[in-house]
Amino acid sequence: METALEDRIALEDRIAAEPGSFRILTGDRPTGPLHLGHYFGTLANRVRLQRAGVELIVLVADYQVLTDRDVADRLPEHVEGLVADYLAAGIDPSGATIFRHSAVPALNQLLLPFLSLVSVGELRRNPTVKDEIAAARRASVSGLMFTYPVHQAADILFCKANLVPVGRDQLPHQEITRTIARRFNERYGRVFPVPDALLSDAPSLLGTDGRKMSKSRGNAIALSAGPDETARLIRRAVTDGDRHIAYAPDTRPEVSSLVLLAALCQGRDPHEVAAEIGDGGAAALKEVATDSVNEFLRPIRARRAELAADRAYLRSVLADGNERANTVANRTLDEVRAAMAM
Amino acid sequence: METALEDRIALEDRIAAEPGSFRILTGDRPTGPLHLGHYFGTLANRVRLQRAGVELIVLVADYQVLTDRDVADRLPEHVEGLVADYLAAGIDPSGATIFRHSAVPALNQLLLPFLSLVSVGELRRNPTVKDEIAAARRASVSGLMFTYPVHQAADILFCKANLVPVGRDQLPHQEITRTIARRFNERYGRVFPVPDALLSDAPSLLGTDGRKMSKSRGNAIALSAGPDETARLIRRAVTDGDRHIAYAPDTRPEVSSLVLLAALCQGRDPHEVAAEIGDGGAAALKEVATDSVNEFLRPIRARRAELAADRAYLRSVLADGNERANTVANRTLDEVRAAMAM
Repeated sequence: METALEDRIALEDRIAAEPGSFRILTGDRPTGPLHLGHYFGTLANRVRLQRAGVELIVLVADYQVLTDRDVADRLPEHVEGLVADYLAAGIDPSGATIFRHSAVPALNQLLLPFLSLVSVGELRRNPTVKDEIAAARRASVSGLMFTYPVHQAADILFCKANLVPVGRDQLPHQEITRTIARRFNERYGRVFPVPDALLSDAPSLLGTDGRKMSKSRGNAIALSAGPDETARLIRRAVTDGDRHIAYAPDTRPEVSSLVLLAALCQGRDPHEVAAEIGDGGAAALKEVATDSVNEFLRPIRARRAELAADRAYLRSVLADGNERANTVANRTLDEVRAAMAM
Repeated sequence: METALEDRIALEDRIAAEPGSFRILTGDRPTGPLHLGHYFGTLANRVRLQRAGVELIVLVADYQVLTDRDVADRLPEHVEGLVADYLAAGIDPSGATIFRHSAVPALNQLLLPFLSLVSVGELRRNPTVKDEIAAARRASVSGLMFTYPVHQAADILFCKANLVPVGRDQLPHQEITRTIARRFNERYGRVFPVPDALLSDAPSLLGTDGRKMSKSRGNAIALSAGPDETARLIRRAVTDGDRHIAYAPDTRPEVSSLVLLAALCQGRDPHEVAAEIGDGGAAALKEVATDSVNEFLRPIRARRAELAADRAYLRSVLADGNERANTVANRTLDEVRAAMAM
């Protein structure tokens, strides 16, 4: 834990010193609108890094929604919505490459050499895959899920990203990417960087029902939600009976999550925000949270509404990104083929 | 067994009646020169079907040699050699599409949707993969090997082949291709044919050492071997002490394999060939076998020598095939994306 923290600080120092030498690969599954959990969890960090001078490559992982038919049916809408969310949140498309996974065949072709570099045992031991297998119980895990860490390696390495922002639960995936890069370089000569994981200390925002924030649970505030919807969602949020408001995530998770949400939106310390509310109870807390979120999201919503009205523009951003990604992927695939004497 | 035979006869009848409605996908790993086992096992059958009017698509499976470093090092040579073997054996490149697996990214991209259509359990139960796992014991099976049946499905379905010549041991692979085609069509609408397996009754030619014929064992007569090399290989072939030559594969496998080789080359019945040699013993048998092979291979060798001297032509055949395969694969991938609303 300490080591990971020191590593992160050292890495952030290197990024600050030479931002132009870093390229980040990041992305999302187009399953619906992004919400505040995404924003404070990863989106804000991407915007920060791009503004610092790091190159940003953003993958819209459309192949990874294949198993969910309901989502797949509304895919074009979800993909454009995701692009609108990115730009509204502050990602600058002139410097970033935003592209669809399925539009870049050369990226996907990297799967073949990469699959030859990992064993079935290594894939089976991957904790996320293990969880899926456990969750599926007697139902089956698809080949797509099983090989997911290898797809992720292709996503990251196709553009020679050397920095990948990850949550702690994604570290094992990230380790498979590093293993594949190392093994490829050892066997065929150096083509790939061995990317660093940039551990994010994403604040743990809960959904309004006190469970993990997730669009499918209806407990998340979308970036695209209006002020009234936001107020309604926060009004019915779970709290507790103690009128004194405090920031104590371990003992009072629901109340603390609302405090944190307000604090993040105000850019202040959650303890300070809680102290201000004092004995105002849940009603005062919810009012502060609602106002903070609405104030914070106002400019993002305005940009998003403009963007959503201009679908041709959103499509052109994506077409542009697809083209850039194809150029990069074709170049990498050529290098891979040359290294492998194909 | 009976059913499979009846099926095959019925299928051959359909092919004879309407050859133009069939498209065959077949191919080889570029691991070295093709030999007589390949010729009588599959190559002759491809030539026969092409001459009957069936469309032929031939895949040079270069990604499938990745795990064998020694082979991979000489890949360009092996790939051109394979094309020379095909053409020398009688495949007509003006009607056939001969292409390299690694040159067609859209084909390989089909792996992603296809991986989502099979479960890890189905892959693990595949007998060939099971054999590999057993053979590897504590060593590891690669992700590439584990997902091989899905790659094969992409190879077959990218061009909508509806006919796949297979040996009996490949039937389980072929069944996964059929499953994937069916599931895709059910889930997203009909895009793929459900291909028929054309079971081949390949004659079981043994190598000159009495074991399975294999280039890596040095017990195989390559199509490109000269008459002297052929004579030398057959001279040291394993036989038995019985001077009376007969065709009895079950009890006298080595002698019978030489008889069969001579018979296949002469286009005659092996019992007849054996009766002619009678009590001449192994020496007479080997002489007959050597002469038959050399006579049979003479025109093939002449064509092959000409072709091997014109590497630019071989490369142009491949470039042509790659282009055609890319056109077909891109079209199929577009249909797949449209069906999946991507």
